[in-house]
Amino acid sequence: MSDREDRAAVAPFEAVASQLVDVAMGRKPADLVVKAARWVNVHSGEILPNTDIAVAAGRFAYCGPDASHAVGPQTVVVEAQGRYVVPGLCDAHMHVESGMVTVTEFCRAVIPHGTTSMFIDPHEIANVLGLDGVRLMHDEALTQPVNVWVEMPSCVPSAPGLEEGGAVLGPTEVAEAMGWPGIIGLGEVMNFPGVANNDATMVGEIAATWAAHKTVGGHFASPDLGRAFHGYVAGGPEDDHEGTRMEDAAARVRQGMKAMLRLGSAWYDVAEQVRAITEMGLDSRHFILCTDDCHSGTLVREGHMNRVVRHAISRGLKPMTAIQMATINTAEHFKLEREIGSVTPGRRADFLIVSNLAELTIDAVYGRGVRLAASGRLEADLPVYPYPKSAIDTVRLGRALSAEDFRVMAPRGAGATVDVRVIGVVENQAPTRALTATLKVRDQVVMPDADQDICRIALVERHRGSGTLTNGFVSGFGYRGRCAMASTVAHDSHHMIVVGTSEADMALAANRLGAVGGGVVFFADGVEQALVEMPIAGLMSNERAEIVAEKADRLIAAMRAAGCELNNAYMQHSLLALVVIPALRISDKGIVDVDNFQIVDLIV
Amino acid sequence: MSDREDRAAVAPFEAVASQLVDVAMGRKPADLVVKAARWVNVHSGEILPNTDIAVAAGRFAYCGPDASHAVGPQTVVVEAQGRYVVPGLCDAHMHVESGMVTVTEFCRAVIPHGTTSMFIDPHEIANVLGLDGVRLMHDEALTQPVNVWVEMPSCVPSAPGLEEGGAVLGPTEVAEAMGWPGIIGLGEVMNFPGVANNDATMVGEIAATWAAHKTVGGHFASPDLGRAFHGYVAGGPEDDHEGTRMEDAAARVRQGMKAMLRLGSAWYDVAEQVRAITEMGLDSRHFILCTDDCHSGTLVREGHMNRVVRHAISRGLKPMTAIQMATINTAEHFKLEREIGSVTPGRRADFLIVSNLAELTIDAVYGRGVRLAASGRLEADLPVYPYPKSAIDTVRLGRALSAEDFRVMAPRGAGATVDVRVIGVVENQAPTRALTATLKVRDQVVMPDADQDICRIALVERHRGSGTLTNGFVSGFGYRGRCAMASTVAHDSHHMIVVGTSEADMALAANRLGAVGGGVVFFADGVEQALVEMPIAGLMSNERAEIVAEKADRLIAAMRAAGCELNNAYMQHSLLALVVIPALRISDKGIVDVDNFQIVDLIV
Repeated sequence: MSDREDRAAVAPFEAVASQLVDVAMGRKPADLVVKAARWVNVHSGEILPNTDIAVAAGRFAYCGPDASHAVGPQTVVVEAQGRYVVPGLCDAHMHVESGMVTVTEFCRAVIPHGTTSMFIDPHEIANVLGLDGVRLMHDEALTQPVNVWVEMPSCVPSAPGLEEGGAVLGPTEVAEAMGWPGIIGLGEVMNFPGVANNDATMVGEIAATWAAHKTVGGHFASPDLGRAFHGYVAGGPEDDHEGTRMEDAAARVRQGMKAMLRLGSAWYDVAEQVRAITEMGLDSRHFILCTDDCHSGTLVREGHMNRVVRHAISRGLKPMTAIQMATINTAEHFKLEREIGSVTPGRRADFLIVSNLAELTIDAVYGRGVRLAASGRLEADLPVYPYPKSAIDTVRLGRALSAEDFRVMAPRGAGATVDVRVIGVVENQAPTRALTATLKVRDQVVMPDADQDICRIALVERHRGSGTLTNGFVSGFGYRGRCAMASTVAHDSHHMIVVGTSEADMALAANRLGAVGGGVVFFADGVEQALVEMPIAGLMSNERAEIVAEKADRLIAAMRAAGCELNNAYMQHSLLALVVIPALRISDKGIVDVDNFQIVDLIV
Repeated sequence: MSDREDRAAVAPFEAVASQLVDVAMGRKPADLVVKAARWVNVHSGEILPNTDIAVAAGRFAYCGPDASHAVGPQTVVVEAQGRYVVPGLCDAHMHVESGMVTVTEFCRAVIPHGTTSMFIDPHEIANVLGLDGVRLMHDEALTQPVNVWVEMPSCVPSAPGLEEGGAVLGPTEVAEAMGWPGIIGLGEVMNFPGVANNDATMVGEIAATWAAHKTVGGHFASPDLGRAFHGYVAGGPEDDHEGTRMEDAAARVRQGMKAMLRLGSAWYDVAEQVRAITEMGLDSRHFILCTDDCHSGTLVREGHMNRVVRHAISRGLKPMTAIQMATINTAEHFKLEREIGSVTPGRRADFLIVSNLAELTIDAVYGRGVRLAASGRLEADLPVYPYPKSAIDTVRLGRALSAEDFRVMAPRGAGATVDVRVIGVVENQAPTRALTATLKVRDQVVMPDADQDICRIALVERHRGSGTLTNGFVSGFGYRGRCAMASTVAHDSHHMIVVGTSEADMALAANRLGAVGGGVVFFADGVEQALVEMPIAGLMSNERAEIVAEKADRLIAAMRAAGCELNNAYMQHSLLALVVIPALRISDKGIVDVDNFQIVDLIV
């Protein structure tokens, strides 16, 4: 264990149980005593006034009417004065990479919002750096003053055969990871047709997780509640955050899964699904709240799990129920009920001092008995986590790209126009449309057409430095003039996606990301307009979330200035290579017809 | 794995998941399909009509509106015709030995009552045969067609220094047992002062259990909810079945323990404690039902967990809530939520067909997809389990005992009377009174006195064949005439307790038990009146529960005929050596003053 881990580690309960007993019995002083709190007791469902709480060795030692006997000369005494003590909030499923920052910077951003436990699926870095990438984030997670458990990514690559990303993971890697101290289970099993069809990789990964007595995360992204759903359930996934309708949540809970209701930066799946509790009257114990994906801007400006809990309350849940769904329910799901999720003896002393429960006004945040934040300001010292060079030097273009590289050449003998396939972006939706268009040919080059809102797109291979590209056309961004945007966040293979009206700007943008090690950049008229550097795996910055959020704002502003008025324009850009969602996508292997799971010709 | 285990074993989920998926998808036929059931869904808290359920490989594969696609030519189809499908009932804490029968015979008795999972603490056999005894019952448990998990006994002996039983177990043995396949956790930690005082054995055993990620059972047998209780909680016990009052249950749940509400043959702790739910309004999810101790007669005539669930409903719980407290709540407590406790895909296909939910009328019982009982009659084939000779030859007296052995001699120079300590039995209570009495001396022998209801008691050492006895006096049984009763069930050391008015009958009774390998016997006027043979460790019969119940009835009748009118007279007899409960007891080391934890002189 490194010094860093030492600093943050919490001793196993069995190593400190005697000390907790001594404190409870009054034989030794507590490290911390909270006096006169309203105890939000998620076990009994009660709010109990006049409760004292004593903490030692980072864990709760005593919760009861009077902890005076645990106060010694060195004991820190906090006067709650009737305010609520709430268990620290848990995010049951999320991707740190969505915040564009490291685990450390994510923690720095969310601790003041009351999040003290996170279950992270480092799916993105796994697609770039494989098992080594998972291990890096796992090791970083262990150094935090809050609890960050890691779900081992299950679908890397997400579409074998249709793309070749930075890594391939399978049952062998899953079995290995299950032995790491911070691995809590298998990350969302997205290949739901694979599960229902007994795909060997899916079966093997689930079996390896099960054999390790860990939790299998689910992801059934389909409205079909018929046979395919039942087949998926029978295969072993234990939760699902992809439901959107009331009946989705009910179906999952009835089948013995946990319904994870999601409120992320662009996911709004709580309001509909919570009706399964508020209208259908289902028992709430197997419902859980999560964020899945939060951008830095959301974290900085709106919050994290506190935002989700408030939203759930605003939809008619009792505060107690909403809090249970972000604390004890999550803990029980991951078999961590004796570690986190409630303010009771033996558990890690992660708690919030709250002055208004329905509004979840968080006055202070404690992790393992230490005050980490107060009045929304972080107090904990979180050193920047040093990623090794192998995680930073991941954008390998192989050569400098030129404007010519981004040209689509017409076939020999083509006339003045050719018919091409065009990826059609749809406002507010992840699926694209598979369009065709007639484009002019000039000097053998197929030209984009601003009047049809068709510009160029390229997927630049960036893992192996092969210097190769796939070129195509995309519609829907609304770009005018000469501009280009490049991004190494390119779900799920995370090659580089370049979209632009100008081949020269596209080359500038791609080369710029090659130089800074990845991120997102926007060029117009040959001038850089905005840049978010993400040198870690080309996915994450190690700057603070507020700085990243500000840079991301500038990026969005640059996109708008160039004519793009899409909501979530950056997300639309970064999903164009996501070859598991219909209908037409781009990969390092070509243009992909997702409906038919095949590579198709660009020129029709 | 032996043939026997093979026959009963259920394959791990991960070994059959593909098969379950195939059945759910309609690619392979189910072994069993239940049509048109009312699905008692303990996850959602709903009762869902018109549900079909498909079973394969002993597990649920599909639960939904129509399982026609899973019906093949060999599939057994059960028409539920609107009856309820309820998860098999779980007994969260119990001692098989209390039924005076083997695990197999216990199962034979309770399966028709709907019990399909038991969590047994073989505390009694552990006191006779140590770790080997636990392993024997563990191995027998693995051969059953229902689920019998074993809790490793934690307090053997229960009072070190005040008695020497058949074995000593400690942290080393606990750590070893945690590696056995059928061990689910640590059995009730009864040494609650030891936990609160960081006794090394208790701390070590709890730590070994925690390190194995298994569950620590509790037993806080005190009305004190002050500091001693908080100290006990901080030490790690995760459940408790010793509460008796509403506030006991509430206190346990608030502290993050599970409140186990107990209805046994002589325990009536549900009615008061369930008020924490029905009157105080506590969340019921962390309340669990159990029996702790059931005599054969109760099993044969009244039932088992079905009796407890019915009783809980009769006290005002919704049927759903009471059933959750005997199914999913128990499963979650023992981290078995993916194995048992609900009718949902992946779990073992343990379920009941019930025609009246509030009355819990059980038409049929299924274990792992096989019909085990119907209309209260067992259909499963349960071969008598062969215990080895080492478990049968455990009553070692060392020599034939004579009437003289049971005499208390007056000290040299004593007059016509002496003052002696007398164990005072109290009707309907476990604690005894520490009495003194003046008894006549005849030919140097201190004589019992029927007029004062004082007769002789002896504790005969029976583990090591030392041929030694402790003699004393007891009051409260009301015996008249010449009689004696002997029992090798003598909590917790399980030596032999002999109580009688006649030394000759006492010797006859003791020698008789020596000859049959233990049990309980009653003699009057030199003639055997009743005998319950318990050759396995001197604690259990391998006859059927109804035969044992009938023999036990004859024993009670013989006690009554000799003048004893106590309720639970046999239990009072068998508790006289229980040196952890006040006030005066008998052990192989002498007369024990439990209040002061010391051996005292018989003659004052």
